[in-house]
Amino acid sequence: MTIITSIEFVDLRFPTSDSHDGSDAVNKDADYSAAYLRLVTDDDSLYGCGFTFTIGRGNDICLQAIDALANRFIGRDVTELCANPGEAYRELAADSQLRWLGPDKGVVHLARAAVMNAVWDLAARRAGLPLWQFICDMEPVTLVANLDLSYLSDVLTADEAVAMLEEQRQHREERISNLQANGFQCYTTSAGWLGYSDEKLERLCREAVEEGYRHIKLKVGGNPEDDERRLGIARSVIGPDISLMIDANQIWDVPEAIERVQALAHHNVLWIEEPTSPDDVLGHRSIADGVRPEGIGVATGEHGMNRVLFKQLLQADAVDFVQIDSCRLASINEIIPVLLMAKKFAKPVCPHAGGVGLCELVSHLVMIDYVAVSGPIEGRVAEYVDHLHEHFVDPCIVSKGAYMLPEAPGYSAEIKAESLTRWAWPEGTEWAKRREGANT
Amino acid sequence: MTIITSIEFVDLRFPTSDSHDGSDAVNKDADYSAAYLRLVTDDDSLYGCGFTFTIGRGNDICLQAIDALANRFIGRDVTELCANPGEAYRELAADSQLRWLGPDKGVVHLARAAVMNAVWDLAARRAGLPLWQFICDMEPVTLVANLDLSYLSDVLTADEAVAMLEEQRQHREERISNLQANGFQCYTTSAGWLGYSDEKLERLCREAVEEGYRHIKLKVGGNPEDDERRLGIARSVIGPDISLMIDANQIWDVPEAIERVQALAHHNVLWIEEPTSPDDVLGHRSIADGVRPEGIGVATGEHGMNRVLFKQLLQADAVDFVQIDSCRLASINEIIPVLLMAKKFAKPVCPHAGGVGLCELVSHLVMIDYVAVSGPIEGRVAEYVDHLHEHFVDPCIVSKGAYMLPEAPGYSAEIKAESLTRWAWPEGTEWAKRREGANT
Repeated sequence: MTIITSIEFVDLRFPTSDSHDGSDAVNKDADYSAAYLRLVTDDDSLYGCGFTFTIGRGNDICLQAIDALANRFIGRDVTELCANPGEAYRELAADSQLRWLGPDKGVVHLARAAVMNAVWDLAARRAGLPLWQFICDMEPVTLVANLDLSYLSDVLTADEAVAMLEEQRQHREERISNLQANGFQCYTTSAGWLGYSDEKLERLCREAVEEGYRHIKLKVGGNPEDDERRLGIARSVIGPDISLMIDANQIWDVPEAIERVQALAHHNVLWIEEPTSPDDVLGHRSIADGVRPEGIGVATGEHGMNRVLFKQLLQADAVDFVQIDSCRLASINEIIPVLLMAKKFAKPVCPHAGGVGLCELVSHLVMIDYVAVSGPIEGRVAEYVDHLHEHFVDPCIVSKGAYMLPEAPGYSAEIKAESLTRWAWPEGTEWAKRREGANT
Repeated sequence: MTIITSIEFVDLRFPTSDSHDGSDAVNKDADYSAAYLRLVTDDDSLYGCGFTFTIGRGNDICLQAIDALANRFIGRDVTELCANPGEAYRELAADSQLRWLGPDKGVVHLARAAVMNAVWDLAARRAGLPLWQFICDMEPVTLVANLDLSYLSDVLTADEAVAMLEEQRQHREERISNLQANGFQCYTTSAGWLGYSDEKLERLCREAVEEGYRHIKLKVGGNPEDDERRLGIARSVIGPDISLMIDANQIWDVPEAIERVQALAHHNVLWIEEPTSPDDVLGHRSIADGVRPEGIGVATGEHGMNRVLFKQLLQADAVDFVQIDSCRLASINEIIPVLLMAKKFAKPVCPHAGGVGLCELVSHLVMIDYVAVSGPIEGRVAEYVDHLHEHFVDPCIVSKGAYMLPEAPGYSAEIKAESLTRWAWPEGTEWAKRREGANT
């Protein structure tokens, strides 16, 4: 019997705010970070890595919550844990002393995401399969037993979920072949951060098109003249055929969002992302009513706290592009229910990515969505940001503007030992060097 | 100039789970706790106390977040801080490294509540007034400048808020006189915790009526036969004229909630509280549609994460009784906007209380609501639970089933030094004794 002998926790931070990477209308000092854990077993070759993405000082708080949740797994039988990750998830969700702090949202939910990401990584490694394949190989009834469908039965029952997954199985091989050949289309946000100069914006837009991207996203929400000028620059560089999306990072109230987006419609905008509070289902519906006549869709979900929020966004017809976050929803157990609901309401899931390692996880999730849940791939596009991948043992592979199928066993969540040594906070060698530099 | 010289943080926990106090359909081991802080100044007679209510191990995580938020106030000028608590609130909300962990929800929001509760306590102490009076004395335009109205302008603008507050000012003296004479009606939950025996339930219901309560609340959501039997016992003891409310603590999905509540309607139920996920605005609307024809209203808000959720509950006509929580919403800055929106939609605010110190804070909030915001008092009733008040320097005063006007300066948030010594976790003397007892 293999058991979990210990759990390693690492506070990993990168000084991304130095270069204005990640700057937007709300986030000014975004030091991309990961609250990282590793489930260690008494078999040296078997372990599970997971994390949630945070920013700077937020990492402390997440790690404390991860510790409070995960420690119960020390001493557990790995075979049992991996056979039934849904049981582990339910155990974490039922911790009534931590439930009060949510429930199902904020720090304790991010922590649950991190821990369950590690459990799923462990389960897939143990099976010797990349996670997307591990999931797609599961019998629908087994997969559904591992999902969190609580509070969803007015939209999705377990029987319905099983039937939906069964129906897609016939297309499995053909879809995997398609992914092997073409991958899953992605778009780049790297071009359009708010802190970049016009010259840098122009250069990055040109480079993105040359690299094969068919979608470009720009941050908006500063002053209206800047937004107008920057969209003009981008559209003139990329031409009329490439899709242009804009992202306001929650800066506006509802009436202001409608007005500001309508004013930018003449640039031919595919979607407005996070126009207002991520919690405002009815507000997103009002915004959708205001901008859909201009041919613009509403995208949200990066801060979508849980499955109940996504249920409502879909019920209210408040969203056109469903942007799940792989480290905010509580891992596979909660993400697949959202994929299923989106399928039922015929809305494309276009995952949020970037940060630290979100692209690595998303490169599995989009494959699961396409192969096992949603089918038709047209109009679907996942976010990709080209930074920090060098820290991952199994980085996502992007080719000609598409995520390629991950091949290594696990959830691609393992960070290189060298990167942990260099960037662990505050003791990492790179952070020590920076402190020395600041003192001289 | 008086400045803040340090901040004391205390992890305070009480072993309330021993006696099944606080047991309900979801919370099985509710050790009531407070993540407590005290803003210390260089004037020994001036300080500010605040806390957020949590349960057991959740306290660690909240304290870490409170520390991360509050430390910036060390060295600040007390006069400036107290003149403009809205500025302090906005500064905490704008911390972009912590914002990612919410935004406006979960641990970081609970922490903001604790810190701002301490700031408001400090401001009221400095003015030598109980907080309710400090607030009611503020010019409407000044008060509104201190509120967080972000994301609310589709329902409530600053100008509208000022006008609403101005309109109520003429009734100020008459309402204060009324409160001095009669207080603000409350109801008791102490009778109906799920872990209590039928005999204890019967005895506590009888005692509550004898003490003058006109409303009794029971926990439901176990098996249907138990709910039916317990409601029968309660109704037979309290007679037909006293209001009976039920609280499911989020145990049901939407269709089940409707069915289960309809089955209990023959006991003449005033409200069903927390029938499902607290995040499910549209679900609460469906439940309201299902139970209102039976004369039952929907109550929710104890886990209502922020003002945007309450905005939607009101917009969707999904709630009949608005149950704000004084330590989950981010203090006065966010609570008064919810009171104003409820007034606009003509829904009574019936605050959640209990836990540790929630009644103390609520005894100010209901007075502010009645005197400055909502006016007519009919149909309004605030929760009261009779435990842990002995730990407070200025405990709330309840007489004949009504909260009486607090008279001591501040927000009644200060915990006795002796209680901190005894119940601080893990070093408190009472906890040490219990560990010794467990070891013998």
